[in-house]
Amino acid sequence: MTRPLEKVSIDLGERSYDIIVGPGLLGLDASLAGLPNASRAVIVTNPTVARLQGTKLHQLLTRRYGEGKVGIIELPDGEAYKNWKSLDLIFQALLESASDRKTILFALGGGVIGDVTGFAAACYMRGIPFVQVPTTLLAQVDSSVGGKTAINHPLGKNMVGAFYQPLRVLADLDTLDTLPDREFSAGLAEVIKYGPIADDVFLDWLEVNLDLLWQRDKAALAHIVRRSCEIKAWIVGQDERETGLRAILNFGHTFGHAIEAGLGYGVWLHGEAVGAGMVMAADLSRRLGLVDEAYVDRLVNLIKRARLPVRGPAFGAERYLELMRVDKKAEGGEIRFVVITAPGAAAMRSAPDALVCEVIAAHAG
Amino acid sequence: MTRPLEKVSIDLGERSYDIIVGPGLLGLDASLAGLPNASRAVIVTNPTVARLQGTKLHQLLTRRYGEGKVGIIELPDGEAYKNWKSLDLIFQALLESASDRKTILFALGGGVIGDVTGFAAACYMRGIPFVQVPTTLLAQVDSSVGGKTAINHPLGKNMVGAFYQPLRVLADLDTLDTLPDREFSAGLAEVIKYGPIADDVFLDWLEVNLDLLWQRDKAALAHIVRRSCEIKAWIVGQDERETGLRAILNFGHTFGHAIEAGLGYGVWLHGEAVGAGMVMAADLSRRLGLVDEAYVDRLVNLIKRARLPVRGPAFGAERYLELMRVDKKAEGGEIRFVVITAPGAAAMRSAPDALVCEVIAAHAG
Repeated sequence: MTRPLEKVSIDLGERSYDIIVGPGLLGLDASLAGLPNASRAVIVTNPTVARLQGTKLHQLLTRRYGEGKVGIIELPDGEAYKNWKSLDLIFQALLESASDRKTILFALGGGVIGDVTGFAAACYMRGIPFVQVPTTLLAQVDSSVGGKTAINHPLGKNMVGAFYQPLRVLADLDTLDTLPDREFSAGLAEVIKYGPIADDVFLDWLEVNLDLLWQRDKAALAHIVRRSCEIKAWIVGQDERETGLRAILNFGHTFGHAIEAGLGYGVWLHGEAVGAGMVMAADLSRRLGLVDEAYVDRLVNLIKRARLPVRGPAFGAERYLELMRVDKKAEGGEIRFVVITAPGAAAMRSAPDALVCEVIAAHAG
Repeated sequence: MTRPLEKVSIDLGERSYDIIVGPGLLGLDASLAGLPNASRAVIVTNPTVARLQGTKLHQLLTRRYGEGKVGIIELPDGEAYKNWKSLDLIFQALLESASDRKTILFALGGGVIGDVTGFAAACYMRGIPFVQVPTTLLAQVDSSVGGKTAINHPLGKNMVGAFYQPLRVLADLDTLDTLPDREFSAGLAEVIKYGPIADDVFLDWLEVNLDLLWQRDKAALAHIVRRSCEIKAWIVGQDERETGLRAILNFGHTFGHAIEAGLGYGVWLHGEAVGAGMVMAADLSRRLGLVDEAYVDRLVNLIKRARLPVRGPAFGAERYLELMRVDKKAEGGEIRFVVITAPGAAAMRSAPDALVCEVIAAHAG
């Protein structure tokens, strides 16, 4: 007898699913237990991940769905390919192989692969099942929950997509062994975020265990993936279609998006921009009288230890403000910030431009 | 006091909506009563319909949403443009006008406009509200219910899409005044269908009132649009995501699709192919011992009076069978037919090839 797999259950009525978290999942038949039968299984991945993990998943799926019943589609690697053309590569391959509605897609890769594959599953024949197999820390903690799928449009990121839930998420921690440090660090930004917005005890835990995480200790990784998914599920569960509360998940992201857009997307990783963005958002919370300086210092220290930038680039407070005003979350030009109202609690607030400029002056350049 | 608008309520929990049916709706502020506020309203249509109905709807929307808050997007006309390019024209226009999630789309036109606009609404920013304003009889009776949206792929019709419900359907019967007879006739095919599969009394009614319909009598038109939508809603309500029962809506369509595909799409209108297809499906039902010859004759007569073809083109029984075997509804190569089991009741059946060949020999060429 092996012990049961560890999982986080996402409760969404008839669209409920499990996130299975642990090492070795891609070698384990039990990972697929309970999934519906399918006429074919198709892995969607990119060349890098295919080389590292493709064979293992292909073998697992062949044992389950049968010899010759497993296809693989490789999309070019990177955010620049999160577009209609990649989506169409999937449709083309599915149609050429006469894949019907009983085909099941497996998204093997990071956020881009998950977003494009999820959207393809949402649209192909008006919806076929899919399983997420996230292979980056960011995708494991962030894309596993929320059902957001999308492609980019030349005129805007994530502008075309769907809310569509996977049948299951397999977060195999072994896939993180080969993740470059810089990407690991960027994933930690989204993990750290859950402390200030929802769980002060988790922040304590991260302060104690960060070194273990850098050693890619499996038990420590399992804890942060599970806990991040639990917290995100709790927040999203109250606001599945992103009308209100869910916005607190964007702690650090308003400043962060300005950094990404100001530098040009891809210069800093998203998580790096969120790192510096969280410092600014925490300092804004302090200047609004919501938290004290010791709390901000605590957060800044942890972000540093996660090897993330704690200062934004210097392109001037005016440019920051301008970029934040066109953000998707701005309403009628008024910037809405996620602020920490107490350790482990967040809310949306607007703030005087002058105060925001002080924050930027203190933490950029 | 004006009398309340006539409507069919589609009960889908929180996605419930009304189909409002009547003349003059595009001139009536009450048509929009109860719709949510919106930052902008955007009409999606084609040049032909824009010329006939565009001004009226634009004025109605301007009264409701304000001067300068109403946009219009014209897509090229015809099934050939039910593709990604047209979809992208919508995304492009929405992004260029900085349309946010509170934008509401109005699909003004026939099935192609409804399908493309509905799919655009389903995907833009992961879903924005839309209202259907069908201007053909086919779209009023067929696309108003079911939530099917899609575009075609070069490798298959309706292969990329979503199930997505409108906020409301406005079936303005005045728009049928300018509908060409051939398209009116094609719409009647889908109306007649509801008699044999679900409502023998409706078939009686059609036999009595067909001449009134050809005069485009508003009360008679209101009855067939309402009754068709009611029956379709009743069937779809039991099977929203098309897993079983809903298939009976395809009465006449298995043969019909073979006719369309065999001739090349667009040579016959869909409704024309369904007309001859219903004759074949009724005769197959008779040969299976389910209905008698008098019933088949009754149906054939009504289809004739609707000015629809009652014979399929002659490209040989073998070719028919071959085309039906690759139909989306075929399972493992076995053709599933919708047959009439009794007047007003239908079911899915397979049938011996020899019997199907007899049917084709009798009703094609």
